[in-house]
Amino acid sequence: MTKSRLEAFSDGVLAIIITIMVLELRTPQGHGWSELIRLWPTLLAYVLSFIYVGIYWNNHHHLMLTVRRINGATLWANLHLLFWLSLFPFVSGWVGESRFAAVTMTCYAAVALMAAVAYTILAAVIVRADTSNHLLADALGSDTKGKLSLVAYVVAIVSPFAGQIGTVLSGLMMIAVALMWLIPDRRIEAVLEREKRS
Amino acid sequence: MTKSRLEAFSDGVLAIIITIMVLELRTPQGHGWSELIRLWPTLLAYVLSFIYVGIYWNNHHHLMLTVRRINGATLWANLHLLFWLSLFPFVSGWVGESRFAAVTMTCYAAVALMAAVAYTILAAVIVRADTSNHLLADALGSDTKGKLSLVAYVVAIVSPFAGQIGTVLSGLMMIAVALMWLIPDRRIEAVLEREKRS
Amino acid sequence: MTKSRLEAFSDGVLAIIITIMVLELRTPQGHGWSELIRLWPTLLAYVLSFIYVGIYWNNHHHLMLTVRRINGATLWANLHLLFWLSLFPFVSGWVGESRFAAVTMTCYAAVALMAAVAYTILAAVIVRADTSNHLLADALGSDTKGKLSLVAYVVAIVSPFAGQIGTVLSGLMMIAVALMWLIPDRRIEAVLEREKRS
Amino acid sequence: MTKSRLEAFSDGVLAIIITIMVLELRTPQGHGWSELIRLWPTLLAYVLSFIYVGIYWNNHHHLMLTVRRINGATLWANLHLLFWLSLFPFVSGWVGESRFAAVTMTCYAAVALMAAVAYTILAAVIVRADTSNHLLADALGSDTKGKLSLVAYVVAIVSPFAGQIGTVLSGLMMIAVALMWLIPDRRIEAVLEREKRS
Repeated sequence: MTKSRLEAFSDGVLAIIITIMVLELRTPQGHGWSELIRLWPTLLAYVLSFIYVGIYWNNHHHLMLTVRRINGATLWANLHLLFWLSLFPFVSGWVGESRFAAVTMTCYAAVALMAAVAYTILAAVIVRADTSNHLLADALGSDTKGKLSLVAYVVAIVSPFAGQIGTVLSGLMMIAVALMWLIPDRRIEAVLEREKRS
Repeated sequence: MTKSRLEAFSDGVLAIIITIMVLELRTPQGHGWSELIRLWPTLLAYVLSFIYVGIYWNNHHHLMLTVRRINGATLWANLHLLFWLSLFPFVSGWVGESRFAAVTMTCYAAVALMAAVAYTILAAVIVRADTSNHLLADALGSDTKGKLSLVAYVVAIVSPFAGQIGTVLSGLMMIAVALMWLIPDRRIEAVLEREKRS
Repeated sequence: MTKSRLEAFSDGVLAIIITIMVLELRTPQGHGWSELIRLWPTLLAYVLSFIYVGIYWNNHHHLMLTVRRINGATLWANLHLLFWLSLFPFVSGWVGESRFAAVTMTCYAAVALMAAVAYTILAAVIVRADTSNHLLADALGSDTKGKLSLVAYVVAIVSPFAGQIGTVLSGLMMIAVALMWLIPDRRIEAVLEREKRS
Repeated sequence: MTKSRLEAFSDGVLAIIITIMVLELRTPQGHGWSELIRLWPTLLAYVLSFIYVGIYWNNHHHLMLTVRRINGATLWANLHLLFWLSLFPFVSGWVGESRFAAVTMTCYAAVALMAAVAYTILAAVIVRADTSNHLLADALGSDTKGKLSLVAYVVAIVSPFAGQIGTVLSGLMMIAVALMWLIPDRRIEAVLEREKRS
């Protein structure tokens, strides 16, 4: 089974997710600056979600670079990841329209957490699918960034229950994780580079 | 005629179908837990439809693996399948918003039935297109899962007319079929594997 | 310049056009048979438009099979075709919601006419781009189906002005053209086949 | 790292952006000519935005032709460009619905400016990514068209503040830039051609 169609389908789904989020930016009724400014929570949520989906596309791209063989379980683990990512437009729009209400912040962080869990499962399934995928296992090594993200997501899920300051903390956590991941996964690039040389 | 553009186009359409379904999850007016909980029928319908379209993508992927030559009839049989799958977002949204009303359950199952019929036609057209596609004919063999699905769909179409319990039965049928197909089509994988060895 | 990205982009746009048309099938308010039956004009318009876009995808696929070299003019002629096709969801939805009002029928046929004109321009631009594309020039030969379609579109544009019967005639014309094109372009397939043998 | 998935993902996003803009053309309530004519600002904005996204696809296509090696920075510079382009449906719909209100014209031109800046950054990142990308550096040379566009965008952003005539000037600037770019980037084609010969 080749991985090219898996990549093509995932690219398609991710491209659509990242693009239809803009539909949550509904055309304002009026046409002055105030109408635009009133949109800032939706715009901010859009920027953040765009970065999140971009990060997943980036990491998915790196993950697949190392893969040599996929099986049926990989297909479903991949669809499972895409499912959680497909909820980003929904939670993103909700966070924006509710102007960062506590419940919506919790939901946003929960979707991010589930996507991270699904990504971890996908990586594990790929490693198990074939011993020739050992490159990936090496590259993942001790996944500090991944573990930090999980902690941040849990904080972002729980903190909105602690009132206004908790909601702000939740938002800061989500922004911090995005910034941390903006740096592409050099671990995998490094291992591939080493492999090529040897 | 190459099959790569057929796959690319189908991937595109399936990726869009599976993703625009999330647009049926409309942003709730309020921003409390109750608004989210009230969405559960739409969410459940979304999860089920996501799995169904995922199954079709999976099986389409497997079907095409065995194809060596396609013709004009294949293109139209493929579009016919995509047509019925494209109705999933509509029936899925309707089932969710009507909170599993009988008529909508019947329509959902009917669309699933027509997609299954279209898939069967596509497989038959491919086998007829070229004798070199015999691999597929071997693999399909006695299609027990396919036949069971058809029976389940017919039950799911008819049963909602029998009142509340019938509607529940219809839903259970649809869930049962989805679970049955979550297991990828090992028959085709097995035949390809055997071919490679010999 | 390679043609693969042109094909990939066109596949993407066509896949999206054919799929977002389903969004015009808005979830009915109620959930009985009457609500579904009341949707029949939109459903009929959807089926017809799905077939039209499918025909264009099919013919585009055949057109590109013969192309050996493309240039900047080809890219724009292709975008021009995609522009007119992108208006199908709009006119299709309008025809359906207005239940085949005369003006909307005229607009639908006009968009179909412009798409046909754009396709003819694209084919001409490709032939001029490179003498090695002569295969296509041979294949197109005397394009009887194309000319018949143009006549039918003009009739379908004009006839709704003649009252109720004219509107019915307009619809029949559009259905007739769709049926005529459902048969794939054997001329091109035939020429390619001959080429391969010689 | 290969560039094919970058191209595929970008093609997907651009295909979706260019196509979902048509969703801003909402089905009119009535079904007479007057309803259609009243849509002309939205239609005009749609045509212009379609051309703009088409130009970016075209130039992106040419840009990637010369690339031999990409890195993580390229992925993010590319996503940054796609982000600004993804705002075209929003500003395009707003301009149309507000019938060319001053603030919306400024926003439209500002999004166009940011996309141009992002494109310039992407080109610079690619040149820096690898010395083997020097072809592109040669081709870009003194980018007169690019510089003219930036000036026109700034005029188009500022002029709507000067009242009715300024708004008209802003629109004319945006149309002028689109026409200027409709001619594909012969500089890059020319350099590639020269390279091939030597």
